[in-house]
Amino acid sequence: MTSSSAEFTRADGRALDQMRTVKITRGFTSNPAGSVLVEFGDTRVMCTASVELGVPRFKRDSGEGWLTAEYAMLPAATAERNRRESMAGKVKGRTHEISRLIGRSLRAAVDLSELGENTINIDCDVLQADGGTRTASITGAYVALADAIAVLKARGVVPGNPLLPPVAAVSVGVVEGNVCLDLPYEEDARADVDMNVVMTESGEFVELQGTGENNTFDRAQLGEILDYAEKGCRELIAAQRAALAQDL
Amino acid sequence: MTSSSAEFTRADGRALDQMRTVKITRGFTSNPAGSVLVEFGDTRVMCTASVELGVPRFKRDSGEGWLTAEYAMLPAATAERNRRESMAGKVKGRTHEISRLIGRSLRAAVDLSELGENTINIDCDVLQADGGTRTASITGAYVALADAIAVLKARGVVPGNPLLPPVAAVSVGVVEGNVCLDLPYEEDARADVDMNVVMTESGEFVELQGTGENNTFDRAQLGEILDYAEKGCRELIAAQRAALAQDL
Amino acid sequence: MTSSSAEFTRADGRALDQMRTVKITRGFTSNPAGSVLVEFGDTRVMCTASVELGVPRFKRDSGEGWLTAEYAMLPAATAERNRRESMAGKVKGRTHEISRLIGRSLRAAVDLSELGENTINIDCDVLQADGGTRTASITGAYVALADAIAVLKARGVVPGNPLLPPVAAVSVGVVEGNVCLDLPYEEDARADVDMNVVMTESGEFVELQGTGENNTFDRAQLGEILDYAEKGCRELIAAQRAALAQDL
Amino acid sequence: MTSSSAEFTRADGRALDQMRTVKITRGFTSNPAGSVLVEFGDTRVMCTASVELGVPRFKRDSGEGWLTAEYAMLPAATAERNRRESMAGKVKGRTHEISRLIGRSLRAAVDLSELGENTINIDCDVLQADGGTRTASITGAYVALADAIAVLKARGVVPGNPLLPPVAAVSVGVVEGNVCLDLPYEEDARADVDMNVVMTESGEFVELQGTGENNTFDRAQLGEILDYAEKGCRELIAAQRAALAQDL
Amino acid sequence: MTSSSAEFTRADGRALDQMRTVKITRGFTSNPAGSVLVEFGDTRVMCTASVELGVPRFKRDSGEGWLTAEYAMLPAATAERNRRESMAGKVKGRTHEISRLIGRSLRAAVDLSELGENTINIDCDVLQADGGTRTASITGAYVALADAIAVLKARGVVPGNPLLPPVAAVSVGVVEGNVCLDLPYEEDARADVDMNVVMTESGEFVELQGTGENNTFDRAQLGEILDYAEKGCRELIAAQRAALAQDL
Amino acid sequence: MTSSSAEFTRADGRALDQMRTVKITRGFTSNPAGSVLVEFGDTRVMCTASVELGVPRFKRDSGEGWLTAEYAMLPAATAERNRRESMAGKVKGRTHEISRLIGRSLRAAVDLSELGENTINIDCDVLQADGGTRTASITGAYVALADAIAVLKARGVVPGNPLLPPVAAVSVGVVEGNVCLDLPYEEDARADVDMNVVMTESGEFVELQGTGENNTFDRAQLGEILDYAEKGCRELIAAQRAALAQDL
Repeated sequence: MTSSSAEFTRADGRALDQMRTVKITRGFTSNPAGSVLVEFGDTRVMCTASVELGVPRFKRDSGEGWLTAEYAMLPAATAERNRRESMAGKVKGRTHEISRLIGRSLRAAVDLSELGENTINIDCDVLQADGGTRTASITGAYVALADAIAVLKARGVVPGNPLLPPVAAVSVGVVEGNVCLDLPYEEDARADVDMNVVMTESGEFVELQGTGENNTFDRAQLGEILDYAEKGCRELIAAQRAALAQDL
Repeated sequence: MTSSSAEFTRADGRALDQMRTVKITRGFTSNPAGSVLVEFGDTRVMCTASVELGVPRFKRDSGEGWLTAEYAMLPAATAERNRRESMAGKVKGRTHEISRLIGRSLRAAVDLSELGENTINIDCDVLQADGGTRTASITGAYVALADAIAVLKARGVVPGNPLLPPVAAVSVGVVEGNVCLDLPYEEDARADVDMNVVMTESGEFVELQGTGENNTFDRAQLGEILDYAEKGCRELIAAQRAALAQDL
Repeated sequence: MTSSSAEFTRADGRALDQMRTVKITRGFTSNPAGSVLVEFGDTRVMCTASVELGVPRFKRDSGEGWLTAEYAMLPAATAERNRRESMAGKVKGRTHEISRLIGRSLRAAVDLSELGENTINIDCDVLQADGGTRTASITGAYVALADAIAVLKARGVVPGNPLLPPVAAVSVGVVEGNVCLDLPYEEDARADVDMNVVMTESGEFVELQGTGENNTFDRAQLGEILDYAEKGCRELIAAQRAALAQDL
Repeated sequence: MTSSSAEFTRADGRALDQMRTVKITRGFTSNPAGSVLVEFGDTRVMCTASVELGVPRFKRDSGEGWLTAEYAMLPAATAERNRRESMAGKVKGRTHEISRLIGRSLRAAVDLSELGENTINIDCDVLQADGGTRTASITGAYVALADAIAVLKARGVVPGNPLLPPVAAVSVGVVEGNVCLDLPYEEDARADVDMNVVMTESGEFVELQGTGENNTFDRAQLGEILDYAEKGCRELIAAQRAALAQDL
Repeated sequence: MTSSSAEFTRADGRALDQMRTVKITRGFTSNPAGSVLVEFGDTRVMCTASVELGVPRFKRDSGEGWLTAEYAMLPAATAERNRRESMAGKVKGRTHEISRLIGRSLRAAVDLSELGENTINIDCDVLQADGGTRTASITGAYVALADAIAVLKARGVVPGNPLLPPVAAVSVGVVEGNVCLDLPYEEDARADVDMNVVMTESGEFVELQGTGENNTFDRAQLGEILDYAEKGCRELIAAQRAALAQDL
Repeated sequence: MTSSSAEFTRADGRALDQMRTVKITRGFTSNPAGSVLVEFGDTRVMCTASVELGVPRFKRDSGEGWLTAEYAMLPAATAERNRRESMAGKVKGRTHEISRLIGRSLRAAVDLSELGENTINIDCDVLQADGGTRTASITGAYVALADAIAVLKARGVVPGNPLLPPVAAVSVGVVEGNVCLDLPYEEDARADVDMNVVMTESGEFVELQGTGENNTFDRAQLGEILDYAEKGCRELIAAQRAALAQDL
């Protein structure tokens, strides 16, 4: 735990509890049932939701559907080009970790028992990375999921009403002792504590992942972090609602 | 070889020798030295050129640079979602084949001896696929390459003047006996002959890849195919020149 | 969020905030510098700390050391035999995720700048799994780390005093609305919320990973969860201290 | 495009439009239904055609058969030993590219609708490489295919008459400005243009693959290249016919 | 062949034909049907036998069962940490070789026709390695197999009486010209000849694997080696019998 | 152990202790330093020895050379086509096991201290398999090794005289109770005991690998097996000597 310095200002001039500009573009591509470009500042992620008949083996004959997610970074998304995982022949641990986080988070936004034995594949491909790619992915993927479910319902494939209220995610970090909302890469790289929070519209937690590799944090600081996270998620959910309110 | 039917019309109403609408957007993302979104109709490919100091082992101490290329399809780019190659743990033969084609084609547009011992990595990631992804990739990658070399020169990294005149690529197919320029997926899937042609501004061939899996073709038909290809490539090179003439 | 049932009792008769029996056996095997068998009830993990000269590339010439961790489950550790990852040819996402968590947690217990350019490899191999394998791994690995550093110091390899105060980890879950400490497999499988907490001796957080896949949780519940976690970690750290106080 | 030097002579004394000595040995091994050793000068490839009941999934219930091909280089086939791909754990792009070319070419020589739901596996294993291994493979594989189909018909497995007229392949290159037929390694390594042509007996093209990595080529040169290719393929088809006319 | 030196003594003071202390602990873990910790001196291997319904494809509808085995070394089992095979992405040749040896050896101790269509998976995981890990594995796995079959019979799953009399294994080496029984690592590393012998209770051979990489051996020496092996195996089988005679 | 039936005759009419016809063709291909086609009846293996400057890391600065071997089966070598290991992405355990056996056996035929810091790569590729592929490989590889060393000496690369006297290998099996020399596939598939013996010219053992998966064997039978093996190896070594006595 470090104490904050009074004169701390963020490189991009934002207030400590201020999100970057968020943009959600629906119908970004036309093949998948749901396709969204989400932007948190310079972070840009293409989130799609594709539908497949049938479910994986462990769900067969359950009467329920399934949702799974894959996250990836395009090679040129980062400041220094990162090696293509398909060429390396193996997927990095970080990629697995984020894919699993997205999958769990989005499963909290869908009632699988209303989906029929269908599978929704979420793909989050980072076109440009500037911090917060996993939280942008979750936030954008909810919108793609909503569009995909609407398509399914229009086609009469889905028996029930599987879409649950929005889920959004944001990062909060502690930088030079200051709690900051929605870290860009430059802040993320030097943060002492990094917390990713996934929340529902009613303000409950779906996932909390906080790590203090460069420093630890106490419960007071945790409280402040969660306040910021809640503010960010509320704004993101408003943006999701606004995007979904428009005609596609 | 099939004879053409007089009343053939293309689904999108184009003339037989007409390209789809081509759009080239420079500066599509900001991290790589060159970043282009190229569109041939509904086919959209993000083409980037990243620069790395040093060269692969087989070029070390040659005084020359190198250029290599990787092509990939996002999972949701196609009508039916295709499996992510990184998760499958291996790269498909088709992917390798196209990556190699792009690499060879772009090496015809750069004088490696003027590049210094630097490597340019071309990445072509298909966001949306509707036929002609490899030809769009080559065409867009030239523009990304040009921008990357400009960056290198501005930084003083490149000793000479490595950029050669444009190289562009187009597909020509024979559909129901009719030679057609720039096939979308719907035509490509039922074409008897499929030819990809890579050309220089002076109208010379860099690569010719023609396959007649459903049918063979004779030299007369080849002549007609190449006429169409030349027309397409000239238009593409004009589009490359126009895009590069604008301020970035 | 579910409300708790008054008459809830745990299958093994424990109080809601009671740990399973914890045993830490040092010197479990003789080849690695530190070797510990840690038991949380029926969960048994062999934790070792091996020392290697030199550091990975990204740490070279930094004057600092590095610590990395790998977690694995023996095939027969689980009720139903699980497939050996080496034979499958790829490591599961879950394995990667846990390995990374252990690594980050243990790096909070070592001052890398005091380690010299040496690497410590932590291996946590689960001999028998009954829930809480990752938290047992972290708790046991700290003791193995302490023993390994003592060996290094005795050999004069380590310049400074790299060992920091203990770090321990415990899981807390919400089962049928009741917050429960240290879940065995039977409870874990039906928990609505599952939180893994890594803490320092001073009661600060190193990692918080909470997931509410079957249900969400609110801040009040989070508070209760963290109270339980703190109680568990304090007891675990006492057990680590007691184990380390004995002669090896 | 380079101009030719008047005094150009080939290292092995051949005329520019002269093939190397071609030998086709049927029944080279006895296990596969068709087994051929094909030699283009010092290039030697073992080509086999094995028959398997059933077809891959995408052809199931189509009433048609399938043909697939795999190409590989033995480690000691080349002047410098090349690494075994099975040990490297991945297949090189070049190998994939050639396997796919062979498959497409041979599918032009078989009427899949006459084959019944059977699969023919073509294997081309290069015992000794001296340029032109892919063209020798295609040429030899046709003969192995013919023998395998004869076996199938004799066994009564094949309903119809699936064998189509011969398909053969040859390389033509431009070396120091001179168009040369059937390049050995020494010429191939320094060729400006390298074209592989697959033709039917009636002189139509099945595949054209030309690359001008070191130089480009124009339509006049293309015409000359195709004249040479046609001459080579006619001679190869005569050799295939002669080999097949003999008793096995 | 080297002549023995009269004054040869073993580092651990054993007679040339003396086994290390052997310990067999049944019920080492509780999840698998059979679980044994076997110790040959400092070599410690966890051997488990897990039962799975059904058989691999090549045994389907044979009315017989199957037994398969996998051997692995924990990373910290050896003096110098060895790389985890799952992380390397491939299994070493040595591992495959030993897994296959264990499988063949144990299949000699089970009558597959009495097993029903069930599969027994033997896992031998080396916790600590000091030579003789494969022979300890075979010896311990027989006891785990016996326990697993007893479980199967108690559950009524196994129709017949599949367990055959014990099979045990021991290594014999030639060190400085002296035949020595049950080599620890220190002797194994400098042995001229290394023989692993798998025997039945009636003194017949199941497997003989002798290698003289540093030296060759003649039939007289072979005779002496086999005498030692027979003595060792008799003692091991007595230990297996004694362990199995106790209540679990 | 089964008793032999008096009226046993071998399918190919050979006496029990008679080898199949053995042919050794040197200079089978021209690129590797040594290249041999070895035939044991219908089993045909191409054995090559290639030379590489330098040694693997564990031999660096030892002043000694190294020899390594790789064995593989062409897909069409067997009665039923076997899957190509490079396409499967992993090498089978059987392949590893045989490669390691060949490597150890051939290292007994070379004095590494006389080789200088050079590596010899042995490749044994089975063109046609009819039992005994590993023993044919070892026998043929010795001749390829001898030729490669002669090339090295002629080039002045090898300081000393690394070639040791011949090493050869043969299989002996027990079929219906009868000891039989040099089993073809048909006998091998139903043998009760299968022994591979690698011997030196002086009649000493390099490797003994005997397995009695379908039955066990006793020392009397072992004696008989080794008598047959010795007869076979003596004949093979005579064939190696005769082949090497001819001009290449």
